[in-house]
Amino acid sequence: MSVTSPLGFTAAGVECGLKDSGGRDFAVVVNNGPHYVAAAATTANRVYAAPVQWTREVVANRTLKAVALNSGGANACTGDAGYADTVATAHLVAAELGVIPADVAICSTGLIGELLDMDAIRAGVSSACSKLSDDGGEEAALAIMTTDTRPKQAVYSGDYSVGGMAKGAGMLAPQLATMLVVITTDAVLNEDEADAALKVAMGQTLDRIDSDGCMSTNDTVILLASGASGVHPSPEDFTEHLIEVAQSLGEQLIGDAEGASHDIAVNVHGASSQNAGLAVARAVSRSNLLKCAVFGDDPNWGRVLSSLGTVPESVAPFDAGSVDVAINGVTVCRNGGVGDPRELVDMSPRQVNIDIDLKAGAESVRVLTNDLTYGYVEENSAYSS
Amino acid sequence: MSVTSPLGFTAAGVECGLKDSGGRDFAVVVNNGPHYVAAAATTANRVYAAPVQWTREVVANRTLKAVALNSGGANACTGDAGYADTVATAHLVAAELGVIPADVAICSTGLIGELLDMDAIRAGVSSACSKLSDDGGEEAALAIMTTDTRPKQAVYSGDYSVGGMAKGAGMLAPQLATMLVVITTDAVLNEDEADAALKVAMGQTLDRIDSDGCMSTNDTVILLASGASGVHPSPEDFTEHLIEVAQSLGEQLIGDAEGASHDIAVNVHGASSQNAGLAVARAVSRSNLLKCAVFGDDPNWGRVLSSLGTVPESVAPFDAGSVDVAINGVTVCRNGGVGDPRELVDMSPRQVNIDIDLKAGAESVRVLTNDLTYGYVEENSAYSS
Repeated sequence: MSVTSPLGFTAAGVECGLKDSGGRDFAVVVNNGPHYVAAAATTANRVYAAPVQWTREVVANRTLKAVALNSGGANACTGDAGYADTVATAHLVAAELGVIPADVAICSTGLIGELLDMDAIRAGVSSACSKLSDDGGEEAALAIMTTDTRPKQAVYSGDYSVGGMAKGAGMLAPQLATMLVVITTDAVLNEDEADAALKVAMGQTLDRIDSDGCMSTNDTVILLASGASGVHPSPEDFTEHLIEVAQSLGEQLIGDAEGASHDIAVNVHGASSQNAGLAVARAVSRSNLLKCAVFGDDPNWGRVLSSLGTVPESVAPFDAGSVDVAINGVTVCRNGGVGDPRELVDMSPRQVNIDIDLKAGAESVRVLTNDLTYGYVEENSAYSS
Repeated sequence: MSVTSPLGFTAAGVECGLKDSGGRDFAVVVNNGPHYVAAAATTANRVYAAPVQWTREVVANRTLKAVALNSGGANACTGDAGYADTVATAHLVAAELGVIPADVAICSTGLIGELLDMDAIRAGVSSACSKLSDDGGEEAALAIMTTDTRPKQAVYSGDYSVGGMAKGAGMLAPQLATMLVVITTDAVLNEDEADAALKVAMGQTLDRIDSDGCMSTNDTVILLASGASGVHPSPEDFTEHLIEVAQSLGEQLIGDAEGASHDIAVNVHGASSQNAGLAVARAVSRSNLLKCAVFGDDPNWGRVLSSLGTVPESVAPFDAGSVDVAINGVTVCRNGGVGDPRELVDMSPRQVNIDIDLKAGAESVRVLTNDLTYGYVEENSAYSS
């Protein structure tokens, strides 16, 4: 059910011919109110797609009534013609829904540098808007998939609900990790509450996954609040449940990353600050050598040390000669040197936990990544995406 | 001939049993004078090996009479015992050569986190020192190889000579790229000239190759000047020839990078400064997605744009909507959007040239990298190194 679990939302996902591979490729999520509060986060890439530009503009007043999303084309690096196509799509959706174009956000994902097939888009808009239903979330989640092998959805249900869907399997790195995410809620939120909750939740979840170190041109995360439950939770309560849903989506993204055979949690402990811990966790998460070793079931802690050593002392103060590293619970590195025998480490589970103790403070940070495999190379060499 | 091409140098490379795979694994390069000027650059990694610590100490007075190098073990993350082994090795070499230990630099490469087999080292010192000859450079170059498939050597010969050898195939990224390099010259240089020339040459050559974004714990580049030619070149002249030799070694390192099937030159033009161009070139060189695309012979310029867009504007001012990208001479991206058809690009040569015009200034920068292949994943997952 995902995005249609909360009250006040309908959705649809249809096939309109954008994806060469066939399958659903166009989705619409509609907020039917009574409130239309929205917040969004988009890619930090200086090269950003036309739909990102449009979405930034229309979410500026913190109101949205619908989000239209397509796979089968990123509409990035497509110049004025690409931007005109995004605007036209918003106009088409607005006309079908009887709203104004400025209430419609657009998200696209797929190959960079090609114009969208607007005949297909027109067919998709018309078809999706005619099929909107309050259990259309599942189909919408299917329609935004690219190299994803399965849809990603998450729900929190209490006296109000939060529902989310996500796509993303490669070009996954903050900030943001490369993804399209729509999260809906029927909680009553004002604009500031929505903004603040999204910012906090993103920082702790979707900004802390890193599949391949590659930042996308199209990343978009949108939060829509309908207020239909009539429940006005405290900011802390809502943020907690938003984090829960966003964390689940983030884990699902990493769990389906291109070609991955291991999910890797890089847990940094004893950091002097969150930023210090994050810098260390990100450096370790981006080591191709470590990621290859994990693919080969090799608890090669030297590659953990050599990557954390690249973080400048000004960013993360710690003594390299004091660092402990445990892989799946075995402390293979103690005080920067040889620890327990690496033969004791069981690398067979899909989940691999790398625990790094910097012994420089009290902060802990977790970043999720995955291994580097033949499958990743194959998916990203054999297909333009 | 490499490091023994210049007058005043002898070398040897022998097998002493450090490498499981067998083959030469211990080398000594000796400067027989009359001068003993030395300069060195070592890894910027905060986690650095015992031999790096020792070499920094002994080169501080800018005098060296010998360098001993071993493959088959990095002696990194080995604590006090590892450092004691490095010191012991220097003492052994010094005793054989009749010099003091503080005149002997040590370099090691191989697996991180294991102590060296000191029985093997003792045998290696004794054997290598007994076989020193003025045509031993080739054997020394063989003895420092790890996953390298061939030795790397380069020579400049004029009224004075410069000779170099290098190893490095993975964990290759500045600063430095991961490598052991010894460069010899019979030019007459004072200490300041040697230092300055090495700094300039490194910055333009060995610091501008990036195989896999992974910085090593053991990088060491050493310049030894014997003065035996009696020729005192101008600093400009010497630096030019040092650059020539270092550039050749850098190209050979990238050309033999683990599993690579394409050498990639990322040429950034129109940068506002060298630093700006370098930041852009490095960001593009580190995109796993682009490197996979090149492996698949796919001129996927969208992945060039999405990576250069990650460089902060404060570091590299340019307008993303003005950037041109040519791949092997075909301008596939013009003004940030679609350019000439990607079908026109011939990706069959091993060498791939990516020319990026930022149109933001007059500076040009080149960084060398390679593609990301099944072979890279295999070499780095199947073997601890």
